[in-house]
Amino acid sequence: MQERFVIIGGDAAGMSAASKARRENPDLEIVVLERGNWASYGACGLPYYIKGDIKNIQDLIAIPPEIFREKRDIDLRLNHEVIRISPENKEIVVNTRDGDYKLGYDKLLISTGARAIKPKIPGIDANGIFALRDMDSGKNIKEYLQKNSPASVLIVGGGYIGIEMAEAFHANGLKVYIVELLPHILNSFGTEIAAVVENHLKDYAQLRLGKYVNTITETDTGKLSVQIKDKKSANHEEHILTDMVLLATGIKPEVSIAEEAEIVLGETGAIAVDEYGQTNIPDIYAAGDCAEVKHTVTGQSVYIPLALTANRNGRAIGSTIGGSATCLASIAGTAVVKAFQLEVATTGIIDIDLAKKNGFNPVKVTIDSHSRAGYCPRSKPIKISLMADRKSKKLLGASMVGEEGVVKRIDIIAAALSGKFTVEQLENLDLAYAPPFSPVWDPVLTAARVLKSKLNR
Amino acid sequence: MQERFVIIGGDAAGMSAASKARRENPDLEIVVLERGNWASYGACGLPYYIKGDIKNIQDLIAIPPEIFREKRDIDLRLNHEVIRISPENKEIVVNTRDGDYKLGYDKLLISTGARAIKPKIPGIDANGIFALRDMDSGKNIKEYLQKNSPASVLIVGGGYIGIEMAEAFHANGLKVYIVELLPHILNSFGTEIAAVVENHLKDYAQLRLGKYVNTITETDTGKLSVQIKDKKSANHEEHILTDMVLLATGIKPEVSIAEEAEIVLGETGAIAVDEYGQTNIPDIYAAGDCAEVKHTVTGQSVYIPLALTANRNGRAIGSTIGGSATCLASIAGTAVVKAFQLEVATTGIIDIDLAKKNGFNPVKVTIDSHSRAGYCPRSKPIKISLMADRKSKKLLGASMVGEEGVVKRIDIIAAALSGKFTVEQLENLDLAYAPPFSPVWDPVLTAARVLKSKLNR
Repeated sequence: MQERFVIIGGDAAGMSAASKARRENPDLEIVVLERGNWASYGACGLPYYIKGDIKNIQDLIAIPPEIFREKRDIDLRLNHEVIRISPENKEIVVNTRDGDYKLGYDKLLISTGARAIKPKIPGIDANGIFALRDMDSGKNIKEYLQKNSPASVLIVGGGYIGIEMAEAFHANGLKVYIVELLPHILNSFGTEIAAVVENHLKDYAQLRLGKYVNTITETDTGKLSVQIKDKKSANHEEHILTDMVLLATGIKPEVSIAEEAEIVLGETGAIAVDEYGQTNIPDIYAAGDCAEVKHTVTGQSVYIPLALTANRNGRAIGSTIGGSATCLASIAGTAVVKAFQLEVATTGIIDIDLAKKNGFNPVKVTIDSHSRAGYCPRSKPIKISLMADRKSKKLLGASMVGEEGVVKRIDIIAAALSGKFTVEQLENLDLAYAPPFSPVWDPVLTAARVLKSKLNR
Repeated sequence: MQERFVIIGGDAAGMSAASKARRENPDLEIVVLERGNWASYGACGLPYYIKGDIKNIQDLIAIPPEIFREKRDIDLRLNHEVIRISPENKEIVVNTRDGDYKLGYDKLLISTGARAIKPKIPGIDANGIFALRDMDSGKNIKEYLQKNSPASVLIVGGGYIGIEMAEAFHANGLKVYIVELLPHILNSFGTEIAAVVENHLKDYAQLRLGKYVNTITETDTGKLSVQIKDKKSANHEEHILTDMVLLATGIKPEVSIAEEAEIVLGETGAIAVDEYGQTNIPDIYAAGDCAEVKHTVTGQSVYIPLALTANRNGRAIGSTIGGSATCLASIAGTAVVKAFQLEVATTGIIDIDLAKKNGFNPVKVTIDSHSRAGYCPRSKPIKISLMADRKSKKLLGASMVGEEGVVKRIDIIAAALSGKFTVEQLENLDLAYAPPFSPVWDPVLTAARVLKSKLNR
């Protein structure tokens, strides 16, 4: 009898698994159940669709449903929501507009993704309050901008999405406020790097750092009155009148049906998996924004939901189920965000407390350099934070910011983390040099040299 | 008695050694003998000075002589040429305008650099024929352009310098010819990458590939008539009338005084050194464009004269002589060249024959990808060649070309080569992704995936 591989969730991890399993095994029956109306889309592109760089939301679809169905023989079912997993019968229950049905599986992949965290703020359900997570939510925001021409937006949360959406709203002519509970936006990049971004953002947005939204009230004029409080001084408060609010306070793994099926979650709250992406229940796998991954530096299970990992681990599981056992890759947490004119990037561990919590003795430096040879025109400043462990001298992570040449420089560090490089090995890398592209001593090498000298003190 | 460290040659390797030795040991006497009129300059910037990007040739000087003399207590003597080394007396002979003198040394560094290869072409000494090697030669070319306003230039050699100078001449309004003996310009980057550059160059220069300059004749009108012959078909010839010729046929190590002192050269013709940069004669070191280096991939001694290595190895020797023994770094041969709108980069071994000669069983792929997510505007094509050894599955090298995002992507491979990564380890790197900066699967990862699949066939 034909083996059936059922996949819950039709985005990055799910469709990568489906496609790879099909290539590995032409005989497998592959069914993908997607509760929404879209499959295989680039959610990371949504801010650029809203900004206006990408004209048509359809352009974000990597591969259209017909291709999966017709060319890859994948039974992709949109608007089919899995509401129960019964591991004991190897069966799931699917809800559709036309009622529920049961479907047996031989192998199951849970790639249900994540959902936006909805903060508990009085007034949170008022009109004009949005969150960005999937295609429909992106479409809603775009439509709201087009229909209502709001003059201002308040973004709750200064992480990746908050920053990218600030750029998108600003490009649409809105006045932008960003409210961040932590002392810095992009807090995980470290104070030094975050400060550069904050300074740059001042030209484009009003920042409220160390502050939180206490209540949101609809006014008689159809605006939203947002009450902001200071985290440290209870007496300080501010009311901002805005046309629109975007909640960008992070995401959490969508694990409800997994939990109900007694699939074990890790300490992070995401689904725990082994090196092949298998959960505690045989033949049930998990990947993407609902699952844990192994950290490159610590070897620990972490929750770092990123697009590449979802694609890669989905693909690995598809390969395993298709017949070629393939281990999941570890993740260094490499991330980059465009913040108006700046490129901001990070990889590994750059937070001193987090490093200590993981048993390291962290030493960190921050250096200033340039994207090109000093005598070259259009050279731009680059700031790099680099951290290593004092005992092993091995690298732990880095963050960088600058107007050019940052994105792929962080990947040098990502490679170094994968190779368990010491600071000296990084310092000795033979990196590319030509005056229009870098100083003779690349900023990465300068950072390594300064860090090595601090390690030896 | 105060120990004396004498350095022959005051550019990258020499001045790096001097500065580092001073920092390590305040008591050392440090004398630098530079036969020319300039010290510590960025020769790599000369094409951009000639192009006009850099207005003042003085801007190419990293550190002015006074700083070395006054702030670093380094006895820098310009226009002092060392004409003999007598290891048996630990003494050198220095020639100046005012005559010769002898100088004893405790430690000696030979950092005499390289000189432009002068091809044996009848007519090679005619007026209007130039080579670019040092500051004076760069100044000469710039002055010739300004005084004579030549309308055309023929560049002999399609390597880095030839390509960079083509851009410089084109920016000055000259019609540019490039004559290259090998079948491709940038031949060491591999056919696939070179072909992209050649196609791009067609808008800016007339290419003559597989051809060589047979004779150069001065005409009655003060022009140069260059006779070009085809390497393969003896009957084919062409005469190009040009105002100017640039010889860019490579460089060779400046080793005459070393040879006379019976310092051993390697098979490459450059000075052989041990892991600390010491020659066969105790207390005599060599670094920079006159010395061999160890290749990261093969472990063999090679001659790859590049600026970073000169600086780095000079610095390491300065450290050793200053009291902190420091090994030289290996070199992957990472190089990048700006070719008009293109970035072209290479690292490691990408030539199949060279790989075989070094005992590898090379497998190479070339892939096409993009600098940004497919749906992003302004995404540019990137082409990557990637090579690995079939047996060990380890990476050997890569070449890349594209309009953006190439330079620092080659550094990912440089890091991977240093870490002795397999293709699979490269494929599993957690690289940065955001739509404005790369596809989810970075071109480097795509290349690794395709290569892995070919390795497994």
